[in-house]
Amino acid sequence: MATTVVSKVVSPVQATLLQRFLAARQATEDACRTLTAEDQMVQSCSEASPTKWHQAHTSWFFETFVLTPFLRGYQPFHPDFHWLFNSYYRSLGNEIPEKKLRASFSRPSLETIVGFRAHVNRHVEELLQQDNVPDDALRRIVLGIQHEQQHLELLLTDIKHAFFTNPLHPIYREAQQTADAEATPSRWVEFEGGIQQIGYPLNTADPLDFCFDNETPQHRVYLQPYALENRLVTCGEYLAFMNDNAYTRAELWLSEGLDTIESEGWESPLYWQRCTDDSTGWRIFTLGGWRGLSTMLATPVCHVSLFEADAYARWRGCRLPTEAEWEYAANEAAMETTGLLEQGGLHPVAATSDGLTQMLGYTWEWTASAYTGYPGYAPLPGALGEYNGKFMSSQMVLRGGSVATPASHIRTAYRNFFTPGTRWQFSGIRLARAFSHNE
Amino acid sequence: MATTVVSKVVSPVQATLLQRFLAARQATEDACRTLTAEDQMVQSCSEASPTKWHQAHTSWFFETFVLTPFLRGYQPFHPDFHWLFNSYYRSLGNEIPEKKLRASFSRPSLETIVGFRAHVNRHVEELLQQDNVPDDALRRIVLGIQHEQQHLELLLTDIKHAFFTNPLHPIYREAQQTADAEATPSRWVEFEGGIQQIGYPLNTADPLDFCFDNETPQHRVYLQPYALENRLVTCGEYLAFMNDNAYTRAELWLSEGLDTIESEGWESPLYWQRCTDDSTGWRIFTLGGWRGLSTMLATPVCHVSLFEADAYARWRGCRLPTEAEWEYAANEAAMETTGLLEQGGLHPVAATSDGLTQMLGYTWEWTASAYTGYPGYAPLPGALGEYNGKFMSSQMVLRGGSVATPASHIRTAYRNFFTPGTRWQFSGIRLARAFSHNE
Amino acid sequence: MATTVVSKVVSPVQATLLQRFLAARQATEDACRTLTAEDQMVQSCSEASPTKWHQAHTSWFFETFVLTPFLRGYQPFHPDFHWLFNSYYRSLGNEIPEKKLRASFSRPSLETIVGFRAHVNRHVEELLQQDNVPDDALRRIVLGIQHEQQHLELLLTDIKHAFFTNPLHPIYREAQQTADAEATPSRWVEFEGGIQQIGYPLNTADPLDFCFDNETPQHRVYLQPYALENRLVTCGEYLAFMNDNAYTRAELWLSEGLDTIESEGWESPLYWQRCTDDSTGWRIFTLGGWRGLSTMLATPVCHVSLFEADAYARWRGCRLPTEAEWEYAANEAAMETTGLLEQGGLHPVAATSDGLTQMLGYTWEWTASAYTGYPGYAPLPGALGEYNGKFMSSQMVLRGGSVATPASHIRTAYRNFFTPGTRWQFSGIRLARAFSHNE
Amino acid sequence: MATTVVSKVVSPVQATLLQRFLAARQATEDACRTLTAEDQMVQSCSEASPTKWHQAHTSWFFETFVLTPFLRGYQPFHPDFHWLFNSYYRSLGNEIPEKKLRASFSRPSLETIVGFRAHVNRHVEELLQQDNVPDDALRRIVLGIQHEQQHLELLLTDIKHAFFTNPLHPIYREAQQTADAEATPSRWVEFEGGIQQIGYPLNTADPLDFCFDNETPQHRVYLQPYALENRLVTCGEYLAFMNDNAYTRAELWLSEGLDTIESEGWESPLYWQRCTDDSTGWRIFTLGGWRGLSTMLATPVCHVSLFEADAYARWRGCRLPTEAEWEYAANEAAMETTGLLEQGGLHPVAATSDGLTQMLGYTWEWTASAYTGYPGYAPLPGALGEYNGKFMSSQMVLRGGSVATPASHIRTAYRNFFTPGTRWQFSGIRLARAFSHNE
Repeated sequence: MATTVVSKVVSPVQATLLQRFLAARQATEDACRTLTAEDQMVQSCSEASPTKWHQAHTSWFFETFVLTPFLRGYQPFHPDFHWLFNSYYRSLGNEIPEKKLRASFSRPSLETIVGFRAHVNRHVEELLQQDNVPDDALRRIVLGIQHEQQHLELLLTDIKHAFFTNPLHPIYREAQQTADAEATPSRWVEFEGGIQQIGYPLNTADPLDFCFDNETPQHRVYLQPYALENRLVTCGEYLAFMNDNAYTRAELWLSEGLDTIESEGWESPLYWQRCTDDSTGWRIFTLGGWRGLSTMLATPVCHVSLFEADAYARWRGCRLPTEAEWEYAANEAAMETTGLLEQGGLHPVAATSDGLTQMLGYTWEWTASAYTGYPGYAPLPGALGEYNGKFMSSQMVLRGGSVATPASHIRTAYRNFFTPGTRWQFSGIRLARAFSHNE
Repeated sequence: MATTVVSKVVSPVQATLLQRFLAARQATEDACRTLTAEDQMVQSCSEASPTKWHQAHTSWFFETFVLTPFLRGYQPFHPDFHWLFNSYYRSLGNEIPEKKLRASFSRPSLETIVGFRAHVNRHVEELLQQDNVPDDALRRIVLGIQHEQQHLELLLTDIKHAFFTNPLHPIYREAQQTADAEATPSRWVEFEGGIQQIGYPLNTADPLDFCFDNETPQHRVYLQPYALENRLVTCGEYLAFMNDNAYTRAELWLSEGLDTIESEGWESPLYWQRCTDDSTGWRIFTLGGWRGLSTMLATPVCHVSLFEADAYARWRGCRLPTEAEWEYAANEAAMETTGLLEQGGLHPVAATSDGLTQMLGYTWEWTASAYTGYPGYAPLPGALGEYNGKFMSSQMVLRGGSVATPASHIRTAYRNFFTPGTRWQFSGIRLARAFSHNE
Repeated sequence: MATTVVSKVVSPVQATLLQRFLAARQATEDACRTLTAEDQMVQSCSEASPTKWHQAHTSWFFETFVLTPFLRGYQPFHPDFHWLFNSYYRSLGNEIPEKKLRASFSRPSLETIVGFRAHVNRHVEELLQQDNVPDDALRRIVLGIQHEQQHLELLLTDIKHAFFTNPLHPIYREAQQTADAEATPSRWVEFEGGIQQIGYPLNTADPLDFCFDNETPQHRVYLQPYALENRLVTCGEYLAFMNDNAYTRAELWLSEGLDTIESEGWESPLYWQRCTDDSTGWRIFTLGGWRGLSTMLATPVCHVSLFEADAYARWRGCRLPTEAEWEYAANEAAMETTGLLEQGGLHPVAATSDGLTQMLGYTWEWTASAYTGYPGYAPLPGALGEYNGKFMSSQMVLRGGSVATPASHIRTAYRNFFTPGTRWQFSGIRLARAFSHNE
Repeated sequence: MATTVVSKVVSPVQATLLQRFLAARQATEDACRTLTAEDQMVQSCSEASPTKWHQAHTSWFFETFVLTPFLRGYQPFHPDFHWLFNSYYRSLGNEIPEKKLRASFSRPSLETIVGFRAHVNRHVEELLQQDNVPDDALRRIVLGIQHEQQHLELLLTDIKHAFFTNPLHPIYREAQQTADAEATPSRWVEFEGGIQQIGYPLNTADPLDFCFDNETPQHRVYLQPYALENRLVTCGEYLAFMNDNAYTRAELWLSEGLDTIESEGWESPLYWQRCTDDSTGWRIFTLGGWRGLSTMLATPVCHVSLFEADAYARWRGCRLPTEAEWEYAANEAAMETTGLLEQGGLHPVAATSDGLTQMLGYTWEWTASAYTGYPGYAPLPGALGEYNGKFMSSQMVLRGGSVATPASHIRTAYRNFFTPGTRWQFSGIRLARAFSHNE
């Protein structure tokens, strides 16, 4: 793929789109490079999917929503892939393989899936070299690229869990293991609030402009004065919370959270494990293998649930920000892009800059906002409408992306969402509190 | 109790409070009058508790939070009741009987519980006849009355479920079975929105003024223009939705809702059952026994989950109101009080008045708002702080009360909350939609 | 009932049968005398049923299998009881209330059930005072009496569990709490084996002679020489096993047993609880309330599972007897009848006599035999055929009856059966081993 | 391995053993030849294990029980394999990976496991070429070969289930699809019974003689006269049972069986599926792919549970044989060896010979005997004692081997055992009934 030559002059929009398409596809394949066919079979928790499935499902998306309707004479790669790699678009039919069976997918083989990817790439390229591809097709390719990037992020979080679960604890990618710098000192960044706009200002005339349907419509909200902590909560700060017996103090927890930590036996974030060879008594599993907690105290805590983020905030006498507070603040601050996938570390590093920092990248930030539709929200028509809207119950919003999020995928308006007990994502904690001029 | 004579002159505030206390206690006992000791043992679903337990737990509340701290020399009725009837105040100790064991409570006997109630009543009365009872005690009695009323409502919804589950389907209270009138025709009531206030304006100087902590602080919100349907959705309208195969059409449902209707086998609201002796093919179980649906078509549909309310709204091309929209509208409208517990029907009747109607009483109304804290929300200190705040995850707000809610218990600011799959409450549907001047 | 006068001369067989019938019915009612209507509602584990249900179900048996087919003009007591109190006779119809709903049976009330019992008693009496009642009816009444006695035993074991589960731990019947005597010293009673007969020699000509179908046909078996311990294993002996860390030593346990003790968290027999006010550190819940283990060391251990009985035997270098070994030995030994229900203690006492003792009564004795049909076994025809045969998988045989078994109910040929993890019955341990003349 | 040259003269016993060892190891590897690394990862039901795991675990057995204790200077292949491939020998330590995690074993890779096998083979060969290998080591190698063969059989049954579960239904090995011949007509083969011997007559002086501990001691049993059907029940005969609505007739089933068919939704043997392209309306999945039932009517039914075998026998007015009846009959009959693994069909074919046939091979035959120890049974000492004895509860005995059993692995005394609901093995039905001279 990397050597593909764009052989025909097409519109600049189509040329740009093809370049982005090929780059997104390549990024997925790059992430798979060190994984064996066996690694790509593993599904180690119910939230996760095998790497091979991610590779196939993202290709299925282009085949189903782009190639079949828009490329004249397109022949699907395999007659069964139509239903085999449909994950959840229930209006497309009943023959949905149970998610739990994904781990049984020894066939089709990885080799076949690699062939499927090439087939889809070749035909999307063919389509984009035609004249006057309809806007609707272009928009769907844009959506497919975003979908590909979402699954790239999931692929990385899933393989992290798979390797953690594997008794030999393989390393995904060797990382430099330097002790972290001190983190920027904590301070509060204040906002006056009032009536403000949130939501993405989509330019509907530009087929390459994009946001998910759940980021619209842009709308006004009323914000009380508030303050955000300048950086993410660190592992060292979180360790103090643990050492204050927080996991056994009922008054710190949401009721559902207390039930969860008891039934799951949680006493630390996911991927933390007691050990004897670090001065803190803890080590942390990363995509670069085990690291002693003592070398990571200044780095942002991650892989915590909403319950833990909320309890931590209560312990500090603070709260979590609402998503509107978060988005308005992110829009106000000068955005860094140092903590995203392309910087390559695959684990968040300590905050070092001044001002409001670590808003994009590093870790997803749990908010106090449940995931519901914005005023006037309308899902996409047809099967694509199942993308976001149908998940609007019992989930909480997270903002800002993480070290596993591609830079071209994230926006200040971006709304991620998970159930409050979710921990396998790179999810961390940003504190908020009320702000009054009298303080 | 009904014959209790207030034997001493106390402050008007205390006298009023004593009267309210005795009335609330009496209301619970009236509701139990037709129930045998055996009936009061039943717990027919995990959300429910036995009647006997409700009677005891509400007395425990006064003993624990009022009598023990404020009545000098008070002797608890029974040394074990301290922990036996604590439902969930986890910071009070570990010896919490499992909720699932409530049905095993053959002992203490109902007779003992009745004695416990009288003991508590006598001593609260004694306290309120003392001079200068501290404000804090008065406020806790006010809270205890509200707590008593909440459990009265639960008691009624629980015994409804118990009698529905019983293979002989006993009748709780005979009701007049008249065919319902036509319902007021549907129309849309419009609101301009803008910056508005919601939340309860608590007068902290008045110990008898009351709202739950979760209704505060009063605060400003920004509302887009919107409209509410003038009355609740009726059984007849809901039947049309069912007859349009709604329960099998994936596109109408939240993902979690679709999972739920499939795993639970839902095809109608709770308490609806197919039958051969009604022209509609359905009958409905009420606290007055079975009624043919054909006699109830104009009455509000109730015992639906958030999932069903949301799917119905989607089917109609509408949505559910947010809680801010609901509260602002309820504050604007002239409030009727015809559909609450004291009117005695124990099942919602058809809307007959003009204007925005059925806002208070009839059925709880699911909103589109997840249950979280208002800006600046702070729970009560100590164990009482567990009352509301700790449930702020994975629940949705309902507004307005039902036929099982005492009139003195409900307010336009009142926030009830349940998980979205809950159906054993009298929960119904109010539609909302955007409103624009261009229409 | 106790004052019923047999008013007419009938055949001696019928007179005897009526007397036995009335005595069996009375025994059930005597056992219920101290239980409130609320107590009779409780179902505290899945194996148990509420007392009220036992009272009704045994009456249902007579109504269904005796009165309806054999008493001309009999009117059932209630039109719904036909299906309401059918426990498991699936060939009689589909409308089986779920066992789990038994605890919801607030209605029919206990008062109604008591009326049902009287109605059934009166009509069975009427039937038995007619001339020439067919043999088949007499045999079914005999079976109904045995069924009544089985449920009397279950009623006692179930209420023991209910009162243990109740947080106030009520006492069913006050018992004299004397420290037990020393138990007879352990010794081995030897048997030569060879070809022997087991199974009940039923006299089919006598309608009053009775055994269950699973005790027939009488047949020959070949026994290797073997020995039985002269008495049951005591609590003191079992405590030594516990103190030898037996519950954590994998090599002592069947695989399924190890899984069970781990998943259930077992570390002692059922009804044993750690305490601080007995020198052993343990107390035991009995139908007479809590007793310190130090006063019970010589009494037989009971409420153990097959897994625990088997592990104990292995720890002692012994094994459990087969049912054929047990039956042959019981037939050889002189039978005492000191440990059955009528002796009134409701808890097994220490062995004091010489010879092979405690074979009948005291505790049910787990055998090494799985419950299957004897050679040539044929179940009863029709619905009554569901009585025994259909349970012949995954269960183990127990022999000899317990302190909860009526004396007229037990035989050396009697085969009881439970799954190997069952503990709520009075089940104890008899040891066996091979015997060779060379020893 | 196939080319290994035995390079040194050793004792004939050791030479024979080495040959058998290499053949058994080779047979496993032959079975894996067509399976990809991905196929070897799949675990599609809780009873099954991934192929790769079988390959490793059998090697672990030789490393742990033979090489480490007996080969001086032996270096384990990998420091973690000691605990990683221990399946259930709990006395060897606590670090047992959960069975459910076997599917996560992407690492160690198949390539590593193949290396592990070669390493173990090389060192066992080295050991067997030494002088005077102790008898205990030889006996353990014999046991390891039997263990290898058991896992070869499991490997085949597991991959059958894996490929059935895979939505593409791959074929394991192409088979000739000829319509089957008529089966030998049914007739009854009669046995007089009396006192007979069963159990394996182990020659303890010969280290190569072998049986499992559960086949000993040989002992006398008393058999009533009985008859066995001459051949296995066929698919055609079983279809008649299905067509007689057997799966919905409660009176045919054990209680536990009825619960199972209802909860599992069974209406046919495992691997049968309704289809439209066979005249019977059914097709059957085999290791050679799908076959129409109409071509298989004369072949033995297989993949039935004990419950189905028992219900079928009841429907025919027969019963299942006890294991003693089966073994005595098998010893009396002239044994064919046409239906075992080496004949290559991997699916049982129709009976064609006279006399008692299909006793060895074809399908495992469910017996009416629960799996318990023989009189005088003693498990092996140490960890190897966990092999058989600890499973002696809640399981039923099967006899005779199947098309997946190596010929050198089976004996008439061989006792296989599974819980009564097990169907993923090649398990079929042999009928028995009483025999009397009067008939």
